[in-house]
Amino acid sequence: WTPVTDDGVMMLRREFKFKNFRQALEFTNKVGEIAEAEKHHPEIITEWGKATVTWWTHAINGLHKNDFVMAAKTDEILK
Amino acid sequence: WTPVTDDGVMMLRREFKFKNFRQALEFTNKVGEIAEAEKHHPEIITEWGKATVTWWTHAINGLHKNDFVMAAKTDEILK
Repeated sequence: WTPVTDDGVMMLRREFKFKNFRQALEFTNKVGEIAEAEKHHPEIITEWGKATVTWWTHAINGLHKNDFVMAAKTDEILK
Repeated sequence: WTPVTDDGVMMLRREFKFKNFRQALEFTNKVGEIAEAEKHHPEIITEWGKATVTWWTHAINGLHKNDFVMAAKTDEILK
């Protein structure tokens, strides 16, 4: 996970590589499931062979402990 | 659809608004279905209440007639 700053807002971002579009979209859906479960939602960019997930906390316009927890949960999906 | 240029590559982009994350993700999956069916894949940004779809043709680093067809098919999903 890389800390990035977008419009002054600190975020955590990680790119996940896949073999095709379908696998990237399946991953996007799994990230969506944990997002719904935790009621905390990332931005997910889905494209051919790649999904890019970005976590941050809108309410504080930055990073909260929960974002690091969600990043770890995101990694768990692929284990 | 708005023509955008990213790194010198012309693309077609449109933002679709939804009531929550789940509906945005459902739309993302429907766009994924037409992408797989046509073997032409967009970039889709999924976030709470919004999905942003971008079509372009990697092989020519720009826009092909097919991208306009896919943009129209994307709109059809919501009709």
